[in-house]
Amino acid sequence: MVRKAKAIGVDIGGTNMRVALIDNSGKVLQKRKQPSRDGDLLEQLTSMVSELVNDDVVGIGLAVAGVIDRERQVVVSSPNLEEAEGKELVSSLKEEFSLEVKMENDANAAALGEHWVGAGRGLKSFVMLTLGTGIGGGVVHDGRLLDVASELGHITVEADGIRCLCGNNGCLESYASARAMVSRVVDALEQGEESQLRQCCEGNIYKITAEDIYNFALEGDMLARETLKEAGRYLGVGIASLVNIFSPEAVIIGGGLVGAWNIIVEEAKKEAQRRAFKTLIEDVEFLPASLGDDAGVVGAASMILK
Amino acid sequence: MVRKAKAIGVDIGGTNMRVALIDNSGKVLQKRKQPSRDGDLLEQLTSMVSELVNDDVVGIGLAVAGVIDRERQVVVSSPNLEEAEGKELVSSLKEEFSLEVKMENDANAAALGEHWVGAGRGLKSFVMLTLGTGIGGGVVHDGRLLDVASELGHITVEADGIRCLCGNNGCLESYASARAMVSRVVDALEQGEESQLRQCCEGNIYKITAEDIYNFALEGDMLARETLKEAGRYLGVGIASLVNIFSPEAVIIGGGLVGAWNIIVEEAKKEAQRRAFKTLIEDVEFLPASLGDDAGVVGAASMILK
Repeated sequence: MVRKAKAIGVDIGGTNMRVALIDNSGKVLQKRKQPSRDGDLLEQLTSMVSELVNDDVVGIGLAVAGVIDRERQVVVSSPNLEEAEGKELVSSLKEEFSLEVKMENDANAAALGEHWVGAGRGLKSFVMLTLGTGIGGGVVHDGRLLDVASELGHITVEADGIRCLCGNNGCLESYASARAMVSRVVDALEQGEESQLRQCCEGNIYKITAEDIYNFALEGDMLARETLKEAGRYLGVGIASLVNIFSPEAVIIGGGLVGAWNIIVEEAKKEAQRRAFKTLIEDVEFLPASLGDDAGVVGAASMILK
Repeated sequence: MVRKAKAIGVDIGGTNMRVALIDNSGKVLQKRKQPSRDGDLLEQLTSMVSELVNDDVVGIGLAVAGVIDRERQVVVSSPNLEEAEGKELVSSLKEEFSLEVKMENDANAAALGEHWVGAGRGLKSFVMLTLGTGIGGGVVHDGRLLDVASELGHITVEADGIRCLCGNNGCLESYASARAMVSRVVDALEQGEESQLRQCCEGNIYKITAEDIYNFALEGDMLARETLKEAGRYLGVGIASLVNIFSPEAVIIGGGLVGAWNIIVEEAKKEAQRRAFKTLIEDVEFLPASLGDDAGVVGAASMILK
């Protein structure tokens, strides 16, 4: 039997570090997950990779939350993971494991993963948005990842809008991410708005999560529903701009919030269709990402195996 | 003496049709200009090309204001030049002149022109914005034109903003184009705002042009200055989004409004630097386009000659 080449895919986000052993068909064979801030980043990374590496592994792909200098293969900046900035992750791993090591931004890696074996399989072009605490993005064009920053969560949708963590005002992320929705709900509750969400989290409104908002929306709570719709509407504003720029075949939406697919994405779709050039949007498919939390590790591994 | 290969470059905009004879060093040898709506579009085009075509001409490049289907080589939609929609411009010219004919969007062609022999020469990546009645865009990435729609004037900067001719609300074009500035000035004057611009155009405020606004701004008129600054500020909002998406080496600004370079572009630069990711914007150069009105015809010809 021929042994298939394998790779280690790593996805280092602001919250969790995921490491997986992946074969050359894109299948996840084994995986581990730990909170990202569990001690020294490089030590943790080396130790987690060691657990899964074996003789079939031909390389390691890293997906990191932050702006990556692709040429120098370093993390230039990472607001959600400052420990990674300037660290010699790639060269250290190369030395430690004597393997090829490549690094990419996490949302770009997710797009690579979805393109390889997920919702973007077979597509020549798509824009992928990853909805989570923040909003990440990746663009596939002409059958391959467009190697630009693709910080799609940080396009401005309201010139004088909410201050974003990145320093800008009115970023898409400040209106359509999990953080944005939670913040909107807490503000509304503080201002006395009626909502079943008050009963959530043993009455501690500061513990409400995006998932809670989604669950209460399904039960018909108006504040929760309006919050999801508002996020969806802004997502549609951003998507319209991206369609007018990239004229993609599809928009793929992934990340922690896609449980709320129906409410958020239907609203986003409607809004984007109203806004974007008709000739550009009419054939755009809206697709849910299909790899879930594995998109990043699979995409990272694809840089080695594809 | 070896005769240089030449091409005909054509730039069909909403206002003018420009046709030029261009050699393979990008030099404009001869050119003609006529209003675009001077009778039948294809007839006019054929006649203007006939005047300049000679035995050294190896092909014709067309730059057309509108959304181009690159594969089928047709104009899918063109709000400013409806006569061009669906017309068989490429195949008709091919047949008429028995030459290679290629078509591109006009702002994309301008980016090609600037990349070939203008401000973008030698750059691997830049975003070009063409400020005129509307705002066009083109993106060069990895040393070549990114073949996407690049309707950069139609990214949303104010989600609930001014209604744009394209049907969207709050497009960059609705805040930073010549049309937008004139509209802002007329509104202000109608509402009684004090300004020397009242003396313009023999007192007919409905005849004020962007050039008038620029000239009065230079003389210190506050309304004119504020209008240019406001346009510049919004241009900066758009540029910040584009820098966060494309992480380019430079932003090139061209078009009819660049006479007002200092006021508009300095404001845009300041605003973009405040908004975009620091690591992405800090090395971005802001450059004025250098080919002026020839950018489109030169870029169109480059599709044949480069």
